[in-house]
Amino acid sequence: MSGTPETSLPSTLHQALAALLGPSGLLTDTTDTAAFCTDWRALYHGRCAAVLRPASTEECAKAVALCHAHGVPMVPQGGNTSMVGGATPDDSGRAVVISTTRMKRVHSIDHADLTMTVDAGVTLKAAQDAAAAEGLFLPLSISSEGSADIGGVLATNAGGNNTVRYGNARELALGLEAVLPDGNVLNLMRRLRKDNTGYALRQLLIGAEGTLGIITRAVIQLQPAPRARETALCAVDSAAGALELFSAFRKQDPAAVVAFEFMSGTSMALVNRFIEGAGLPLSEPAPAYALVELSSPRAGDGLRSLMEDVLGEALESGLVSDAVLAESETQRNALWMLREEHAEAQKRAGASVKNDVSVPLAAIPTLITEATAACEALIPGIRVAPFGHIGDGNIHFNLVQPEQMDAAAFSARDHDIMDTVAEIVRRLGGSFSAEHGVGQLKTYMMPSWRGGAELESMRRIKNALDPQGLMNPGKIFPAA
Amino acid sequence: MSGTPETSLPSTLHQALAALLGPSGLLTDTTDTAAFCTDWRALYHGRCAAVLRPASTEECAKAVALCHAHGVPMVPQGGNTSMVGGATPDDSGRAVVISTTRMKRVHSIDHADLTMTVDAGVTLKAAQDAAAAEGLFLPLSISSEGSADIGGVLATNAGGNNTVRYGNARELALGLEAVLPDGNVLNLMRRLRKDNTGYALRQLLIGAEGTLGIITRAVIQLQPAPRARETALCAVDSAAGALELFSAFRKQDPAAVVAFEFMSGTSMALVNRFIEGAGLPLSEPAPAYALVELSSPRAGDGLRSLMEDVLGEALESGLVSDAVLAESETQRNALWMLREEHAEAQKRAGASVKNDVSVPLAAIPTLITEATAACEALIPGIRVAPFGHIGDGNIHFNLVQPEQMDAAAFSARDHDIMDTVAEIVRRLGGSFSAEHGVGQLKTYMMPSWRGGAELESMRRIKNALDPQGLMNPGKIFPAA
Repeated sequence: MSGTPETSLPSTLHQALAALLGPSGLLTDTTDTAAFCTDWRALYHGRCAAVLRPASTEECAKAVALCHAHGVPMVPQGGNTSMVGGATPDDSGRAVVISTTRMKRVHSIDHADLTMTVDAGVTLKAAQDAAAAEGLFLPLSISSEGSADIGGVLATNAGGNNTVRYGNARELALGLEAVLPDGNVLNLMRRLRKDNTGYALRQLLIGAEGTLGIITRAVIQLQPAPRARETALCAVDSAAGALELFSAFRKQDPAAVVAFEFMSGTSMALVNRFIEGAGLPLSEPAPAYALVELSSPRAGDGLRSLMEDVLGEALESGLVSDAVLAESETQRNALWMLREEHAEAQKRAGASVKNDVSVPLAAIPTLITEATAACEALIPGIRVAPFGHIGDGNIHFNLVQPEQMDAAAFSARDHDIMDTVAEIVRRLGGSFSAEHGVGQLKTYMMPSWRGGAELESMRRIKNALDPQGLMNPGKIFPAA
Repeated sequence: MSGTPETSLPSTLHQALAALLGPSGLLTDTTDTAAFCTDWRALYHGRCAAVLRPASTEECAKAVALCHAHGVPMVPQGGNTSMVGGATPDDSGRAVVISTTRMKRVHSIDHADLTMTVDAGVTLKAAQDAAAAEGLFLPLSISSEGSADIGGVLATNAGGNNTVRYGNARELALGLEAVLPDGNVLNLMRRLRKDNTGYALRQLLIGAEGTLGIITRAVIQLQPAPRARETALCAVDSAAGALELFSAFRKQDPAAVVAFEFMSGTSMALVNRFIEGAGLPLSEPAPAYALVELSSPRAGDGLRSLMEDVLGEALESGLVSDAVLAESETQRNALWMLREEHAEAQKRAGASVKNDVSVPLAAIPTLITEATAACEALIPGIRVAPFGHIGDGNIHFNLVQPEQMDAAAFSARDHDIMDTVAEIVRRLGGSFSAEHGVGQLKTYMMPSWRGGAELESMRRIKNALDPQGLMNPGKIFPAA
């Protein structure tokens, strides 16, 4: 019966955790724990013995030490927004979920260092807002930023729209604190731009998807707030055209290009059709679009003339057939909405398969041409709807079911589609997961993509730091 | 007798290496090997069984596999410019030095990706020049760049003058190839800005000082060449003044500030006194100096007015008492010479002790005030001559012997001095080695600075990837 306590925790452990964490820190009733056991995409429906919600690093460390002593698997979870099932437990019911959501203090903002010290459970949006309130800028932006928290963002090395200028989450973390699988606390909270004193443990924990420990605090590098900004939506004839336009901007000033996004005509048409108020502000639909944003902390930095010079030349040469510049913050938001709603529009259009891939920049046009042809051959009528961060080589090569096809029948082909795209990506020297990570969904791809010395080295490190294999089991590594 | 073959290699190994590497790839005569056994600062005088000079990754991998099979320790060496004895063998004579200097191909430069693929043995200067020849810019610059090679630069995560803008070597490496301690090749040569597929092995190898493997190739991120540049030398009254000036520039545009260097009056006076042609281009000596360089890939980017606006305001407020702007490349080189010659001037002034430390930016003035007082109390007449990369928190807090003191007597106090400075750095949340690494010189500091879970995690990783402890033994880790 729903609501009945249903814990498989050893009773001594249960008692110790209850004493440590109190009633709001330990959830065992399935009505309370269910939401923690299903991922955001609803691909995985697991079970857990309990959800632990420590309120501090100290509580987290003690809870981990207790679980470690009892041999209980632990699944770290932040905002539970993984696209690959990276933060939910398997269905054995043996594991506990350790949620960071109660650790949500913004400790300090330092204007001399331009840094912010935050707990893992602070959402990315809350961290952005806290920086903005002090006239500073946290240059990491992802669709799930309202729910995703700093711990999860770092554990998965999140990317997003500003990677082209500021890098991934990895590049923004100056310091880190984590609870290791045995409950020891690794304190790497130094706020130093230069520190060459042994192995890059911070870098190792970032992107390890919680398999080596639970990130509990971080020092984040901030930037001065932008004082000038220019945003434009451009109609181009292909991904190659978008890439050429990106190169033209980057050649002028890579530091000014804070976002450069690609949208296929097919994907944009779905946004125009399914999202209310998302009309196309251009005279007619185009085969593809680029959304470019320039910004600078200097007011009067000549950004407008940079934008107009490059676009003027591109319009003259025919590289861009039409373009609209945002003249107000409202218009800017409207242009960004056209980009941000692609995932939602695809969801409304039916079943879809996501391929979060990256290739070297020069290979993007080939990727799109070849993968489009291959998918159309695989499933006639399939809607090939790629979009994404073309400036950093990351394309969400998404496929939407044919209009008349049964959704379940389409979804049953997901591995066929993923493998078809993946083989082209592999041939072009790319990656099968640019920013979403491996989680549970892509573990099966690891041996063929990261096999040999690479996967073996990862396994050795995992075994060295988590010999019992208790921390986020079933993620990254395929079953041996 | 000098020149006599003196190898302690097992004869089967000797034969196999000779067959693999040929006469120019295997040095066993002590007249040939001696230079590889002494570090650049001449702090360590080791011995080796042989020097191996593979000409390719394949030769390197086979040579490592042979040494591994025979249990022979291996010391990777690039340009042999370590400041901390990181690339030379101990005096047992058991180890071989594996030099990367024959692996020196620049494989390709990609204008779409702005990347360069190079062998480990390419010197940093040669790589910079190859990029410049294609109209691009490799934004890493260190004093030893004419000798230091890409492999060493990455193995030690080199910093230098442009870290404030472009980060350390770590931030520039998009791809890496390394030979692991057992001779397996780890190929991480993907040219991807985004790739979240497992542990950050590239990051782990960078900065591991050759203790986890030998870096053999890399993909380096380039930038468009600067089209505008402004350089100024400014007289200020203290490190606090220099820091305030840095903040004023950074507030306007952090992307424009490509270097911001601090020089104490004491250290500058040594340059003026000992370096020919290095006169001070200001009306009178000052307590301290800042060298600021702005640059942009955009021509006509308003850099001159940015420089003049900030300096004008600083002159008016008294923050800067005098300043000179470079009006030509010759003048720019003359200003940079005043910065680059500090190490040489200190060498000519007598014995010195180097402290390559970093602290959070806001703590720099306190560091300089307190460490100056402490060192002067320790050795009356000591010349406190700090300089360095104040914009990224890295000060070379160097001490020069008193004028009349015996050099050897001063050098005998080196640990006293290092420990005195280190304790202040520790209290301020800093690092005992900002960019030079640990090498042999600073292993003794690791337990007290990086002890507990941190050093334990590093040891576990080392044991996992190099269970026999053959790769660069005696570096980073203190004897157990």
